Amino acid sequence: MGVMTATKLTPKGAATRERIVEAAADLILARGVGGTSLDDIRAGTATSKSQLFHYFPGGKSELVGAIAAFQAERVLQAQRPYLDTLDTWEAWQGWRDSVIAHYGSQPHWGCPIGSLAGELMGNDPARAADVAEHLNKWRGYLQAGAERMRESGLLRADADPERLALSVFASLQGGLLLTQTMCSIEPLAAALDGALATLRDSAA
Amino acid sequence: MGVMTATKLTPKGAATRERIVEAAADLILARGVGGTSLDDIRAGTATSKSQLFHYFPGGKSELVGAIAAFQAERVLQAQRPYLDTLDTWEAWQGWRDSVIAHYGSQPHWGCPIGSLAGELMGNDPARAADVAEHLNKWRGYLQAGAERMRESGLLRADADPERLALSVFASLQGGLLLTQTMCSIEPLAAALDGALATLRDSAA
Repeated sequence: MGVMTATKLTPKGAATRERIVEAAADLILARGVGGTSLDDIRAGTATSKSQLFHYFPGGKSELVGAIAAFQAERVLQAQRPYLDTLDTWEAWQGWRDSVIAHYGSQPHWGCPIGSLAGELMGNDPARAADVAEHLNKWRGYLQAGAERMRESGLLRADADPERLALSVFASLQGGLLLTQTMCSIEPLAAALDGALATLRDSAA
Repeated sequence: MGVMTATKLTPKGAATRERIVEAAADLILARGVGGTSLDDIRAGTATSKSQLFHYFPGGKSELVGAIAAFQAERVLQAQRPYLDTLDTWEAWQGWRDSVIAHYGSQPHWGCPIGSLAGELMGNDPARAADVAEHLNKWRGYLQAGAERMRESGLLRADADPERLALSVFASLQGGLLLTQTMCSIEPLAAALDGALATLRDSAA
C-alpha cells in the first residue's frame, strides 16, 4: 500500500510525505510507537488530519512502516561502501568504524529499527514482521561477506557464515541497546570489537 | 517509594501486590509500556482503580519499576549458580546453557528488562535509569567472573574484564532481540557461542 501511494504522488507530494516521515521518525524514536499518538504526530509535523490520511491511508501502522524503511535506508547507506564489500579483514574493520561513526553522531542512541521491531511485536505483528525484514536484509549483507571470505579462503572451510553473521549482528544490536541504557558509544565499540574477534576466530 | 509501600503491607497485601506485578508484567511484555494503559492493567489483573493506587501510589511508572525488579530477579535466579561462579570455562559454558534454557522456555522471546529500558528512555527517563540499573547489575556478574578468570590466570594479564563483559552482555541482549524478530532461539545460541569465542580469544 505504501508503494502504491507513493507512485501516485507528485514530486511536491512526495517531498511532503518524506518530510512527514522524517519528522515523525524523530518523535517515535524519542517516545516509542505506543507513546506517540497520531495527534502528537500531527502536531509535531505541522500536518492536518486529512493530509496525514492522504499520505498514509493505512494510518499509524503504515506511517511506522515508512519510518522503518527510511531509517533502514539511512543506516545501510552509512555503512557503504564497506557493507557491499566485506571481502577482506580491512573491509570488516572499515565497516566497524563506519557503524561507530554513524551512531556516534546520532542525537539518539540505540537502533531505531530494532526498537521498532521489538515494540511492534505484541501490538502489530504484521508490521513487526515487515520491520524485521529490514533487519534481515542488513544481516544478509554480513552473511554474504562472510560467505565470500570463506570462498576466498580467508575463513576456514568449516566456518558457518550464517551463524557468524547472526553472532556479529547480535553484537551490533545488543551494543546499540547498551549505548542507550549506558548513554555511551563505548558498549557498541566493545561489542563490535568482540564480534570481529569471533570472526577472526574462524580465520584460515 | 516502592520499598516504603511494600514494608507497610500485610502478608496478604504483599501477595496481592505480587499477583498484580506478575500479571501486569505479561501484559506489558506483550504490548509494550506505551501500548498498555492503566485501564488495560486493571482489566487484565482484575484489580480496581483504588486497589491499583493503593499498591502503586506512584501509578504506572511505579508499577513498571516493580515489574522490572520482578523480571530481573527471575532472570538472575535462572542463571544461578553459574552467575556467581564464572571462574572456569565450564562455568561460562554452564551459564550459556542456563540462559538458553531460560529463554527457550519463555512464552515471549526477547529480554523484558532490555525492552522496558529501551522503551522508557524517551518517556520516563528516571524510570529508564532505574530499569537500566538491573542491566548494570547483571553485567556486573559477568565482569566479576572475567576479573576472577584474569586473577587466576585463565585470562591473559592484559585482558580487559570490563570490556569483555560489555561485549558478552551485548551479545546476550542482541541475541535476545533477534530471538524476537526471528521467532527462534537460534540467534541467542549463535550470539552466546560467539561471545564465548571472544572470551576464549583472551585466554592465557
